[in-house]
Amino acid sequence: VLQSYHRLISVDDHIIEHPLVWQDRLPQRYRDMGPKVVEDDDGNEQWVFEGDVVDSSQITSGLAVSAGLDFGERTFETIRYENMRPGAYDPNARLTDMDTDGVWAQLSFPTFARFAGTRFLDAKDKQLALLCVRAYNDFIFDEWCAAAPDRYIPNCILPLWDPTEMIKEVERCAARGGHAISFPDHPHNLGLPSFHTDGWTSVFSAADAAQQTLCMHFGSGRELPATSPDAPSAVISALMGQTLFNALADLVYSPTFHRHPGIQVALAEGGIGWIPYAVMRLDQVWERYRYYGIDGQELEKTVPPSQLVRDHVWGCFIDDPVGIEQRHRIGVDRIMWESDYPHGDGLWPNSRRNAEKTFADIPDDDVLAIVEGNARRCFHFPDS
Amino acid sequence: VLQSYHRLISVDDHIIEHPLVWQDRLPQRYRDMGPKVVEDDDGNEQWVFEGDVVDSSQITSGLAVSAGLDFGERTFETIRYENMRPGAYDPNARLTDMDTDGVWAQLSFPTFARFAGTRFLDAKDKQLALLCVRAYNDFIFDEWCAAAPDRYIPNCILPLWDPTEMIKEVERCAARGGHAISFPDHPHNLGLPSFHTDGWTSVFSAADAAQQTLCMHFGSGRELPATSPDAPSAVISALMGQTLFNALADLVYSPTFHRHPGIQVALAEGGIGWIPYAVMRLDQVWERYRYYGIDGQELEKTVPPSQLVRDHVWGCFIDDPVGIEQRHRIGVDRIMWESDYPHGDGLWPNSRRNAEKTFADIPDDDVLAIVEGNARRCFHFPDS
Repeated sequence: VLQSYHRLISVDDHIIEHPLVWQDRLPQRYRDMGPKVVEDDDGNEQWVFEGDVVDSSQITSGLAVSAGLDFGERTFETIRYENMRPGAYDPNARLTDMDTDGVWAQLSFPTFARFAGTRFLDAKDKQLALLCVRAYNDFIFDEWCAAAPDRYIPNCILPLWDPTEMIKEVERCAARGGHAISFPDHPHNLGLPSFHTDGWTSVFSAADAAQQTLCMHFGSGRELPATSPDAPSAVISALMGQTLFNALADLVYSPTFHRHPGIQVALAEGGIGWIPYAVMRLDQVWERYRYYGIDGQELEKTVPPSQLVRDHVWGCFIDDPVGIEQRHRIGVDRIMWESDYPHGDGLWPNSRRNAEKTFADIPDDDVLAIVEGNARRCFHFPDS
Repeated sequence: VLQSYHRLISVDDHIIEHPLVWQDRLPQRYRDMGPKVVEDDDGNEQWVFEGDVVDSSQITSGLAVSAGLDFGERTFETIRYENMRPGAYDPNARLTDMDTDGVWAQLSFPTFARFAGTRFLDAKDKQLALLCVRAYNDFIFDEWCAAAPDRYIPNCILPLWDPTEMIKEVERCAARGGHAISFPDHPHNLGLPSFHTDGWTSVFSAADAAQQTLCMHFGSGRELPATSPDAPSAVISALMGQTLFNALADLVYSPTFHRHPGIQVALAEGGIGWIPYAVMRLDQVWERYRYYGIDGQELEKTVPPSQLVRDHVWGCFIDDPVGIEQRHRIGVDRIMWESDYPHGDGLWPNSRRNAEKTFADIPDDDVLAIVEGNARRCFHFPDS
């Protein structure tokens, strides 16, 4: 049962960056090319970066800022900041919305910068891009989390194109007190090395040493589920969580967890009800394939995937009674809760009421671990 | 508990077509271009069709004919028919292997013809291709199933490129006593209409009228899970079942089940442990998206996906204790068992012993439905 003393910590929410996040922080000479918001001839506000107008349909639209909107208002059409719910971009207004929702603390992902900061991976000017990554992280520490350090968990991004700079940024964010890094779930899909290569060894070693948990949000690697091209968008939405199963299979059959014994991965917004099946299947296939002679790459032979998942992976869910029913197969100590504010999968202002239903038959200690304790451990976020 | 009176009916096995399946049946003038087996200079037997050598690594290799081979012998290298386990291609030898495995009856998919007969969809000469489809189905009725009509369930293929001929073949197979058609899970991926179009209306109407259950085997639409291109093949193997979740999402958000109230779909070799999560997620997304205004296509508003799955879909599994534990969420009357002979996911000669373990704590009546009763209902295959 969800008790009044249980404080909900959500490990997956979204910040719609306000128009000055980068303009406030970039050196003067970079501001014009840096991310900014410009009003077009139709009176719409558009994000502009390196002189190019950026598609805002997933940044400032009714589908990205859904909280408080009726279903019919949730479209790809853009909304002006002044017409947006202020909790989307203002950390103090957000606290009010969290109170309304019965949520104590949040860890949020970027939006203009994209979930894992991949906006800057695509930038032409990589010096500007590096400054933009640092500016976002500074915004998170100095402005967003500073508004309520006991209620906001910082979640940083990295300059994904440069291993040396990535390590520096991992260490800089760690020194600032951060313990979460948003990392792409399908890096190969972004033109980066896959988990099966040596391309991440130095970065993951740095993250492991600095106790940085990698938050992999579905869509962060821009991988889409394979379905009909003419499918309604509901199909993609229903299947997006499964792209994290794909990433998990890549991870457990790669050297990643064997090389980095402390590394932790939180699977954001993918749900948890599929994890028991996934782990069983990963074990079954491993059991056979570790003896097959069909790949150049051999599977590691001694530690089964189920053990790797148990030691390295955290499942996260918004609304998943199927997963909660199977919590012992996942590990009661490896499940975290999400409110997904202000996105359309979230239930604001009914997150807590929905959690009450989910946990109606669950022992209080299990609930405590799932809604609060696990997040505090995973992100080194002690009760202050 | 699996009792001695429970007869195991497997709804997913594989026939490795013997070299004369088509040569025995095609008219004289088509035989040279029809499918045949030729010995190459290295002494390997190769399938040849329309004058082209066909890649046999998934037809007659150790990975396709795994039963009885040690893990180390399971490679993509081809095996001569004389060195193959005869149960792979001979219906009488198969019965002996089924007895050894404790399996009473089987429904099998083709191999050279591919799961849903898509080999012939790619043929240049469509008149030849049509004769090949009919020849395969005749082989199934006259030779394979005739060897033991009470132990073999016929499973037919269609000339997928021609709606008129498809309807004729549906009706011809129905008249011969068939009730199963192997149909591609991702037709759009084969250059055919998706489930969201009107392209299958007449064929599915014919199948519905003739009580033909559509067996959708993973891989039949040649859709692969989205993962790193450099991933070991274990990754693909672990995720293949999830391509059926993709197909299921396409189906339930399409007009298919609304248009064809009797149509039945059996999801082959995808496992069942993911179905409770999938159905929950499909309902959650439908609940929101049926009110969103973002697609040209509107979702049907009244019947939730969970009800469509309950009425139209059958889950099939080889070895899935996670799914069996959640059988009430899936429907005890909608689950069927598989032995996957002679493939590498199968457990021959231990299929029955493994089923004994799976069902150790399950009530006898549930076991009866899952291993035998449901298959008899789904495929109109009464106890003789």
